[in-house]
Amino acid sequence: MTDLGIGLIGYAFMGAAHSQAWRSAPRFFDLPLNPAMNVLCGRNPEAVAAAATKLGWTETETDWRKLLGRDDIQLIDVCTPGDSHAEIAIAALEAGKHVLCEKPLANTVEEAEAMTAAADAAAAKGIRSMVGFTYRRVPAIALARQLVAEGKLGTIRHVRAQYLQDWIADPEAPLSWRLDKEKAGSGALGDIGAHIIDLTQFITGDNIAEVSGQLETFVKERPVAAEHSGLAGTAGSERGPVTVDDAAVFLARFGSGALGVFEATRFATGRKNAIRIEINGSLGSLAFDFEDMNLLHFYDATEDARTAGFRRILATESAHPYVGAWWPPGHLLGYEHGFTHQVVDLVTAIADEADPTPSFADGLRVQRVLAAVEASSTSRQWQEIPE
Amino acid sequence: MTDLGIGLIGYAFMGAAHSQAWRSAPRFFDLPLNPAMNVLCGRNPEAVAAAATKLGWTETETDWRKLLGRDDIQLIDVCTPGDSHAEIAIAALEAGKHVLCEKPLANTVEEAEAMTAAADAAAAKGIRSMVGFTYRRVPAIALARQLVAEGKLGTIRHVRAQYLQDWIADPEAPLSWRLDKEKAGSGALGDIGAHIIDLTQFITGDNIAEVSGQLETFVKERPVAAEHSGLAGTAGSERGPVTVDDAAVFLARFGSGALGVFEATRFATGRKNAIRIEINGSLGSLAFDFEDMNLLHFYDATEDARTAGFRRILATESAHPYVGAWWPPGHLLGYEHGFTHQVVDLVTAIADEADPTPSFADGLRVQRVLAAVEASSTSRQWQEIPE
Amino acid sequence: MTDLGIGLIGYAFMGAAHSQAWRSAPRFFDLPLNPAMNVLCGRNPEAVAAAATKLGWTETETDWRKLLGRDDIQLIDVCTPGDSHAEIAIAALEAGKHVLCEKPLANTVEEAEAMTAAADAAAAKGIRSMVGFTYRRVPAIALARQLVAEGKLGTIRHVRAQYLQDWIADPEAPLSWRLDKEKAGSGALGDIGAHIIDLTQFITGDNIAEVSGQLETFVKERPVAAEHSGLAGTAGSERGPVTVDDAAVFLARFGSGALGVFEATRFATGRKNAIRIEINGSLGSLAFDFEDMNLLHFYDATEDARTAGFRRILATESAHPYVGAWWPPGHLLGYEHGFTHQVVDLVTAIADEADPTPSFADGLRVQRVLAAVEASSTSRQWQEIPE
Amino acid sequence: MTDLGIGLIGYAFMGAAHSQAWRSAPRFFDLPLNPAMNVLCGRNPEAVAAAATKLGWTETETDWRKLLGRDDIQLIDVCTPGDSHAEIAIAALEAGKHVLCEKPLANTVEEAEAMTAAADAAAAKGIRSMVGFTYRRVPAIALARQLVAEGKLGTIRHVRAQYLQDWIADPEAPLSWRLDKEKAGSGALGDIGAHIIDLTQFITGDNIAEVSGQLETFVKERPVAAEHSGLAGTAGSERGPVTVDDAAVFLARFGSGALGVFEATRFATGRKNAIRIEINGSLGSLAFDFEDMNLLHFYDATEDARTAGFRRILATESAHPYVGAWWPPGHLLGYEHGFTHQVVDLVTAIADEADPTPSFADGLRVQRVLAAVEASSTSRQWQEIPE
Repeated sequence: MTDLGIGLIGYAFMGAAHSQAWRSAPRFFDLPLNPAMNVLCGRNPEAVAAAATKLGWTETETDWRKLLGRDDIQLIDVCTPGDSHAEIAIAALEAGKHVLCEKPLANTVEEAEAMTAAADAAAAKGIRSMVGFTYRRVPAIALARQLVAEGKLGTIRHVRAQYLQDWIADPEAPLSWRLDKEKAGSGALGDIGAHIIDLTQFITGDNIAEVSGQLETFVKERPVAAEHSGLAGTAGSERGPVTVDDAAVFLARFGSGALGVFEATRFATGRKNAIRIEINGSLGSLAFDFEDMNLLHFYDATEDARTAGFRRILATESAHPYVGAWWPPGHLLGYEHGFTHQVVDLVTAIADEADPTPSFADGLRVQRVLAAVEASSTSRQWQEIPE
Repeated sequence: MTDLGIGLIGYAFMGAAHSQAWRSAPRFFDLPLNPAMNVLCGRNPEAVAAAATKLGWTETETDWRKLLGRDDIQLIDVCTPGDSHAEIAIAALEAGKHVLCEKPLANTVEEAEAMTAAADAAAAKGIRSMVGFTYRRVPAIALARQLVAEGKLGTIRHVRAQYLQDWIADPEAPLSWRLDKEKAGSGALGDIGAHIIDLTQFITGDNIAEVSGQLETFVKERPVAAEHSGLAGTAGSERGPVTVDDAAVFLARFGSGALGVFEATRFATGRKNAIRIEINGSLGSLAFDFEDMNLLHFYDATEDARTAGFRRILATESAHPYVGAWWPPGHLLGYEHGFTHQVVDLVTAIADEADPTPSFADGLRVQRVLAAVEASSTSRQWQEIPE
Repeated sequence: MTDLGIGLIGYAFMGAAHSQAWRSAPRFFDLPLNPAMNVLCGRNPEAVAAAATKLGWTETETDWRKLLGRDDIQLIDVCTPGDSHAEIAIAALEAGKHVLCEKPLANTVEEAEAMTAAADAAAAKGIRSMVGFTYRRVPAIALARQLVAEGKLGTIRHVRAQYLQDWIADPEAPLSWRLDKEKAGSGALGDIGAHIIDLTQFITGDNIAEVSGQLETFVKERPVAAEHSGLAGTAGSERGPVTVDDAAVFLARFGSGALGVFEATRFATGRKNAIRIEINGSLGSLAFDFEDMNLLHFYDATEDARTAGFRRILATESAHPYVGAWWPPGHLLGYEHGFTHQVVDLVTAIADEADPTPSFADGLRVQRVLAAVEASSTSRQWQEIPE
Repeated sequence: MTDLGIGLIGYAFMGAAHSQAWRSAPRFFDLPLNPAMNVLCGRNPEAVAAAATKLGWTETETDWRKLLGRDDIQLIDVCTPGDSHAEIAIAALEAGKHVLCEKPLANTVEEAEAMTAAADAAAAKGIRSMVGFTYRRVPAIALARQLVAEGKLGTIRHVRAQYLQDWIADPEAPLSWRLDKEKAGSGALGDIGAHIIDLTQFITGDNIAEVSGQLETFVKERPVAAEHSGLAGTAGSERGPVTVDDAAVFLARFGSGALGVFEATRFATGRKNAIRIEINGSLGSLAFDFEDMNLLHFYDATEDARTAGFRRILATESAHPYVGAWWPPGHLLGYEHGFTHQVVDLVTAIADEADPTPSFADGLRVQRVLAAVEASSTSRQWQEIPE
């Protein structure tokens, strides 16, 4: 089988998740190409070498540009903070490498537009690109999309979506790059709000047309983390500003007229990674919560009133998307499986010479919603999303 | 409208529940007879007078035999401890009074047999009797019975039922009449185990044929309650024996071959009144928990595997048993509503000259299972239930 | 015991609920005055007579003004549509009658202001008034208020509240007075949105300061109901306009800075009466859903991470508000019990010569939020709530 | 790092799960030895070669005895049906290979005794053995064990455990080796009942002392699967006997006096892999369901009654067993992670020269309970478990 040489840039949380995906995909799925975990890339030579050993990569590079010139690399997997996505992804596409880029696609609409243009140009030459909205590939979510696409919900009336975490609810939680606007571009809105924007657009097959939003930074200063200050033991004494939002809320109107209510926060005490989506249509409803990620709840309003009720679908049947490759019914999948499914679909698209989804254009669409929420938070008015 | 004069004996927990039922039934349901709350009966004249004022009864008696001679009493409602059920109910039936008798029907099989004989004799003269297995009339339970009777579960394979409480899990909880074999006849087995025996026989339409059981008294001595000792302030110093079971577990085989697993306990810490019933048939399953009493969960195994799942039926639709008389969908009913439904069905049966259910024969059937569990606990063998 | 003569105006859904409350309250609670169900009032003499018999009222009137002159009436209970609340309540207060008025307090801010002024004037003379936000008295909700007031949640960051129904999700559901702006004043916003505004302000002890909202009428024309057209059998052929909102969504900022996200809809297919409230504070969180109304979920963020988790509090302990008067733990209460608690607190306040809550001023506060949401929906900007 | 050469025998369901564990463990955990996936063993040369490629093993063997002579194999991982466990495991231990043996340990008590003796003899020479009760290493289960060991539940009163599946509820589901007593030794009892016996003994730290049980084979004949009959297209026409139990129920008494109620079935329609365990102690309770495997519910009876309630612990915190190596809080683990944890603990024990658990003696203990349940089902009496 032909190898598809992978170069992964970044080896923190996302780097580890992507590594497990590249490693696991061919062990459960029949892939048309063999992903070869050839090169891990990072700036610190010792750290990247240790990570490569740990995560199972054959070689390392410290300059991502080197990857672009290597013949054993056909795909660049971008797992860096958002401020470098545009530069890396565009260069990689121009160098003829397929690109998988973590979300959010970029830190600004302008960057995302440039990336999308680069992706379009590359696609014309058979070079593929994909943005890593991995939750689309949780089986229960993929099933939700199927049910809506089959018309089982009728006309969509309501979309309510929350992404709730609490990891910085404590005011003494230290600053990290995710709280720095330069690096991260955005806070809860871009980091986790982006996911529920993408997921609801994906499931409904509809786009958000306008928004009215509000951002908030509840804790405006935090301890500088020791590793940032370079002064061990002084953490806590020095404090720095939080330059991104802690929480974002917004109303939305979808193109079809459906009403949306969105909330993304890192201050929902007791909620750890609660991606909650509920969709009400004229014929039925769906409900999902990532804290019970193997379940999809489905209400069929056409059933007899006496026995109608939300069905607790345990999405672990071979009839469910992706599940047949794994375990028998009732043997649950976890967080990382979505990443494996992402890799499976990407490799398959490359072999099939097809454009995978979510595309950079999908990522740009999310970016425009993020920008509109920010603009609305300032203007205190509804803001339209340009098409 | 013709009055149906009620005489209620007992005014503790059950007396209060029955009073609310008699009072509420005509306000929500169209009854063929008007229940008149004429006489409350209890041995202590001051206490019964106070209770009658509180609970809304017109007159009082201190000797239940007086009720039998009154022309303004057509129905005797027996809410006393189990040791007096047989005597009162038989006398009342012989006096031509309809009888509603709290469960368990009696403290022994012999008493229950005598009561059933009396009920049969009375029925021949148009006098009706009913035993108060009120949970049958929780709408979700009544719906469960309907679904099984319609064949929606196919052949029943498994019955699992638990009645879990924790009110004496604390070893310092004082003795009460419910812990005294003389008064109560039985502990967890007869008090709450009786309910799940009746409910599962009712829902499945099948009877338990044999059992293997085990009783346990975890705490063998307890403080004598102050009001029993008559010595205020000395509670705790004096201790008395617990003469009934704290918990009962048993396996069962139903007549049809279904396997049953039963558990009744007052030591399930954190479970307050968890009546849990789950039934698995060849075509579907049902699950119920009284701590969510408005819900019935129903799995239809004939559905497509992709969308099959337990349906969370909120049994508050007008299509559900009894519900149409109450509130709009989603406006929950509570514990006491089952008692109101019981009264509605009893009064309707009396007017229709029909025998209501559960009959004393149903109560006897439960009593025989209770006795078999006790016998099995001693013999350490399976015990058959006589037909 | 002294009687408190009640005159109830209206005998539909709310009239039935209030009747059950007046009837049940003295049977479970020790009231300082005896509520006497003296007069039921309605315009149609036959219908009101039938209702009085059914609901247990001694006499009837067809003109509510007659009630104001009767010496056997000390309290007017207003259960009419919103367009008559102001006129009746103000006249009753001026006539020296205590008033319990169903929510929303009025159809406009102006009416609500006049009612509040009347209530203030009456209070000075010892005449009491209360608005019927009955859900405040669901034990789990009352417990939620206690926990916040005790500081167990710390600083409140997030409030998310939904009131979800689906009774007109079907476009063929007929017109009723609740869909007529003249009668109802407002649709989902005023009918059910009002409840979650009041509840979140009650639980947090904080007021909404500004909102950005959106109203929607998904189905703009509906069949005229037969009883309205007066032409039996023609329902469906004639159609009329829906003049109120089907759904309302809004963002809110509370006075303390907490962010709110609200949604009220009659189009949430499969959700019957889902009042969902979740509150995240710096020290803990609360979650409630009326479809499981006996439960409160409480997360204590100060607990050890290893055993921290949302506690499923079954609010049926005698330690919980109102519960001690009812049944043992685990024996659930239902929808109507909140009305009984409302009556208990109102009668107690009258006897204690204290002003009960929620006051008309509380009702006015809700009305101002409703008006601001409507204004915002038109202006497409944030709207402040006047103090 | 020193390699630990692995030879895996069997490559069906369990073989795939073990392969993923060996592959993933060093990528997330710091192991003291490097597991080398050297040899996959199976009888069919083509099939085992294909499986080795798929699952990532370097070489293959078709005779498991060959593995015992190879210097590059230090550990034999036994994933064959139960009838070959004893022969393979004993030979491997005698050959000086560490052994990981799938559960149930054996098909008979006699085999299990011989295996335990071999394990004891091997342990004296530093050779380690472990039986694959992998569910012990689900983080929520490991946490449950910790809480009981710390005394948080006080004296254990009740154990209720169910393992519910439905994969052969359909009478037309074909025969497989799991329904053949020769191969599998037992049906639901040994296959899944073994898990809940081990888990409850593990969590409570106590052993079952006696049982009263009942086995049932609801469907006594089934279609012979095509691959067994060797005659494609004739499946369905030929039928063969089911020689194992479809379901097993039993009561148990633990050594400490706690009462147990157990149920294992493949006929619980709608339940896919529901391992449900609930334990009630004098100070608290625990509840677990594998269909929500990341959750543990914990009730602390020493808390104030007003805020006590089962805590929904999302066992994804770094404070929870095994979790720190994986993802941030709220990012769920799945079925296969327990296998990875098993391998981690086994490799660590080997490096530490310690005996891992569950030992073969633990497996023998389970086997004795299984045998007692079978004996009791025949004798219809309680059966003691020999120590």
